[in-house]
Amino acid sequence: MSHQKFKECIEACLACMEACNHCFDACLREEEASMMADCIRLDRECAEICSFAAQAMSRNSPFAVEICELCARVCEACGEECLKHDRVHCRECAEACFACAEICRKMVVAA
Amino acid sequence: MSHQKFKECIEACLACMEACNHCFDACLREEEASMMADCIRLDRECAEICSFAAQAMSRNSPFAVEICELCARVCEACGEECLKHDRVHCRECAEACFACAEICRKMVVAA
Amino acid sequence: MSHQKFKECIEACLACMEACNHCFDACLREEEASMMADCIRLDRECAEICSFAAQAMSRNSPFAVEICELCARVCEACGEECLKHDRVHCRECAEACFACAEICRKMVVAA
Amino acid sequence: MSHQKFKECIEACLACMEACNHCFDACLREEEASMMADCIRLDRECAEICSFAAQAMSRNSPFAVEICELCARVCEACGEECLKHDRVHCRECAEACFACAEICRKMVVAA
Repeated sequence: MSHQKFKECIEACLACMEACNHCFDACLREEEASMMADCIRLDRECAEICSFAAQAMSRNSPFAVEICELCARVCEACGEECLKHDRVHCRECAEACFACAEICRKMVVAA
Repeated sequence: MSHQKFKECIEACLACMEACNHCFDACLREEEASMMADCIRLDRECAEICSFAAQAMSRNSPFAVEICELCARVCEACGEECLKHDRVHCRECAEACFACAEICRKMVVAA
Repeated sequence: MSHQKFKECIEACLACMEACNHCFDACLREEEASMMADCIRLDRECAEICSFAAQAMSRNSPFAVEICELCARVCEACGEECLKHDRVHCRECAEACFACAEICRKMVVAA
Repeated sequence: MSHQKFKECIEACLACMEACNHCFDACLREEEASMMADCIRLDRECAEICSFAAQAMSRNSPFAVEICELCARVCEACGEECLKHDRVHCRECAEACFACAEICRKMVVAA
């Protein structure tokens, strides 16, 4: 009954939050930021829910499972968008997103 | 000693959060999103600190004053950026930002 | 297709965030804070998701509906807990929670 | 000019966020939660600003330095409060708080 049970999932969410925010920053520096509009939008969405989920798990929220279910869906949407772009920051972000989605879903099933 | 003393400032922060997030969304829909990169970035910065400040005041945070001091500076930076762009959403956002900055500073002085 | 469609729901979420944070602060000042532990916990949960939902709607998040669905459930849990306590701040918080849950559900159905 | 320069500080903030939220949860489970009211309040304050600072740094916020300055002050206040209580979760939280405060201040000076 402790935050330890969420350890792997918290770490995945925080790694994904960092990757999404880095991708957000890098997209805004691209000359073609217009092409990255959906990526910028989803990077923010995903960073916000990942940060929210990590906080919820670390405070042992009674809603941790529902929040992680939603987090997995946002991660998948962000990962799909990032896959469309041929940049290092997008590729790294997609990897973090899919990894986080998988770990969130595993946690939800185990809960 | 209650959240009532912060009432005006909470409302200004929440109005500014809404205006900044609306401007963020609208900038991402512009054909020339590249020209709006700084505006998109500052809209997010400002929405985040305004939301943070409103939550802090409403829970009677011992750090409400310091948070609102910082909030005022972010609002001014976002407002200055928005003034550079000839769009309704930017103009409305600038107005909300400067109004919020002023009310935050007034609250800080009175505290 | 604008943040206007979410206007009523954003306002309900922000009113509920304020009521929950005020209840959180007031519960921590009670002599019998131990009796209020569940209320303190749920006040924070509810303030966080309401603030998150308001931000999401105001930036026209593609996940606004899912977030508000979850928000409604947290509001109901917090409202039920607040009903158990005979304090003005709990009663006012319960009212804000149930009002917010209803408006969130209405928005979800209409979306 | 990348999120790498903030790496150590982001990690300290996230570790502190986790420790504070764990302490928040554990304090609410204590029989004597009334004695822990200030600790519960500061745990939330500190978790929120640490999470906020980590997000700001990871998106390369133009306000990262000011946010970390404020974060250091909140960490110190939370650490001082935790030192008053003879619990494992409070002691671990105090350690994370002081470590984070120091790293934040070092980052501010280096910036």
